Amino acid sequence: MTSAPFDWIDEQARARERAGLVRGLRPRPAETTLLDLAGNDYLGLTRHPEVTAGAAAAARRWGGGATGSRLVTGSTELHAELERELAAFCGFESALVLSSGYAANLAAVTALAPHGSLIVSDAGNHASLIDGCRLARGTTQVVPHADPAAARKALGTHEGPAIAVTDSVFSVDGDAAPLAELAAVCRESGAGLVLDDAHGLGVLGAGGRGAAHAAGLAGAPDTVVTVTLSKSLGSQGGAVLGPARVIDHLVNTARTFIFDTGLAPASAGAALAALRLLCREPERAARAREVATRLYELLVGEGFSAVRPDAAVVSVRAPSPGAAVHWAADCRSAGLAVGCFRPPSVPDGVSRLRLTARADLSDTQLAEVVAVISRTAP
Amino acid sequence: MTSAPFDWIDEQARARERAGLVRGLRPRPAETTLLDLAGNDYLGLTRHPEVTAGAAAAARRWGGGATGSRLVTGSTELHAELERELAAFCGFESALVLSSGYAANLAAVTALAPHGSLIVSDAGNHASLIDGCRLARGTTQVVPHADPAAARKALGTHEGPAIAVTDSVFSVDGDAAPLAELAAVCRESGAGLVLDDAHGLGVLGAGGRGAAHAAGLAGAPDTVVTVTLSKSLGSQGGAVLGPARVIDHLVNTARTFIFDTGLAPASAGAALAALRLLCREPERAARAREVATRLYELLVGEGFSAVRPDAAVVSVRAPSPGAAVHWAADCRSAGLAVGCFRPPSVPDGVSRLRLTARADLSDTQLAEVVAVISRTAP
Repeated sequence: MTSAPFDWIDEQARARERAGLVRGLRPRPAETTLLDLAGNDYLGLTRHPEVTAGAAAAARRWGGGATGSRLVTGSTELHAELERELAAFCGFESALVLSSGYAANLAAVTALAPHGSLIVSDAGNHASLIDGCRLARGTTQVVPHADPAAARKALGTHEGPAIAVTDSVFSVDGDAAPLAELAAVCRESGAGLVLDDAHGLGVLGAGGRGAAHAAGLAGAPDTVVTVTLSKSLGSQGGAVLGPARVIDHLVNTARTFIFDTGLAPASAGAALAALRLLCREPERAARAREVATRLYELLVGEGFSAVRPDAAVVSVRAPSPGAAVHWAADCRSAGLAVGCFRPPSVPDGVSRLRLTARADLSDTQLAEVVAVISRTAP
Repeated sequence: MTSAPFDWIDEQARARERAGLVRGLRPRPAETTLLDLAGNDYLGLTRHPEVTAGAAAAARRWGGGATGSRLVTGSTELHAELERELAAFCGFESALVLSSGYAANLAAVTALAPHGSLIVSDAGNHASLIDGCRLARGTTQVVPHADPAAARKALGTHEGPAIAVTDSVFSVDGDAAPLAELAAVCRESGAGLVLDDAHGLGVLGAGGRGAAHAAGLAGAPDTVVTVTLSKSLGSQGGAVLGPARVIDHLVNTARTFIFDTGLAPASAGAALAALRLLCREPERAARAREVATRLYELLVGEGFSAVRPDAAVVSVRAPSPGAAVHWAADCRSAGLAVGCFRPPSVPDGVSRLRLTARADLSDTQLAEVVAVISRTAP
């Protein structure tokens, strides 16, 4: 044996250290006085008593786990209920729940991009869509961010099945994809559209029905949407929404569906409770958007560089990864938790503070947030 | 537009129908009189009151979801507690919890097989390991099932980082990998060993400490183990166990860790409760193995073709996919739920009934199981 098998890891660790890019875990306590603008609990539902009661009741009734693949013992009537209500809410024929949004994206992209097909993928897409493209048997062509003309050009060169794949709202800057234009391009070319609405569900569209609903694409035979249950719905898991034949196809072919244990009943129960809450209180969606716009305006008023938010994510640019880390740490010392995005999580290499405009933030809290960010700015 | 984008799906659906390979979901009720030998609840813990109470309490205390990536807001003290106790139980320095076993395998394989490295992968490996190999930047060489000599040959041809990747217990036939031999081959070649112990944790080793512990590999600097929380521990999620530097490396580089929402608190709570139960009642592990051996002997006594089980999975061969489906359906009509594995879930194309030897099955129930399987055999 010449050297220990994992010695090369230490080299990489040292390089990360030199670049100021070391990440570590910081487990949080159950109760904290920190104001949280770092999580993705857009509607402030994850600790809502109905949501936690939904999780607890489901665990007690159905058990701690699903016990197997959804194709064997892992499908409960609770999963079916969640799938029916989610599909109906978003305006799609069918839905399929998976154990995460990551798994849902891997499932949708791989199942809809067979050998010989083309995937046209936005350069700003989430890691899970990118990994879906890499796992798919089809060929991927990456096109510039939010550029329907580039997508048209890419699709125009291809014969056979094709899909365009995009986030509806991009997680780094919170900007929306040009969905109407992209859908028109897809229809022109006979391509399907696969849309990751992780950041749109619960925030965009009437009552939070999502970006596809807002763009008039809900229920379209050529549109497939993936969502997560772990952001606006305050739980864990993901789902694919689309025509029944597409969902049947995923049940039969998507490896991250077939070979994974079904979503835990508690998570299905929490998501279902949150969905029902949102149906009853549709104003939560509009409030999240309103908070985001207000936060953006306050920040721009203070001279910060930010992108006008299309959903509930507001990003503020930082001069360097190191400055972003110190900025976020100073915010935390001042009682404010914010996200800090650094390479390699940012496609353009620009580090940012990432703020989540939760629907349950008050105007007073927003003013505090902006005061802290200004006071601690590099 | 020449044709609708997803028309090609219907062709595939018809081909599946002709081949008798259509799969559909059959959501189960919360209560049933069926005897379940289809799920992976090896220790019978998923409905244990301590496990469901663990899930419920965690949801109430921590919320319905983790609210973000483990690197942002998704790490709670509950996750850290689970990681500490899981690592200590299995005999490893560190552990990292992910949202599924699938995600854990993608994380471990991709992070440990950089550009220029070699992955030597057993032909019978689980889909999630295969997808990990396909996503990794290293080159994969698939070697015949359970063949350390072939692994030695493959590793011998390579300069630079290398890993051998294998299930510890293969999910289709329930046979164990030749771990001691494989570990020796890896050490000879300076390669790391990545071991998926999804079916070993809770069943193999002293008190269910898993296959690596049983083989004397626990805590070895060149061994990394992935486990699932959704089988013996009755919950959802997965984990990677290994040296601290490997776990730190995953925190910094594994995309399915970085870009996924953390495991739901309820699932972390259920897994932790199950782990503590297993520590208190270590005899559950031996009982699962005993039930499996007894079931195998009874089946072979009846003339069935089965592989001697190394853990808690017993597979019985069926003459064809169609016969397997009818056999499983007839068992179900007689009150017995069994798994039915057909292509493409079986690497050798042979359809099987798959039986789970739960630790909580009584001898009377085992006799009933064998009577039903015999009576309904094709």
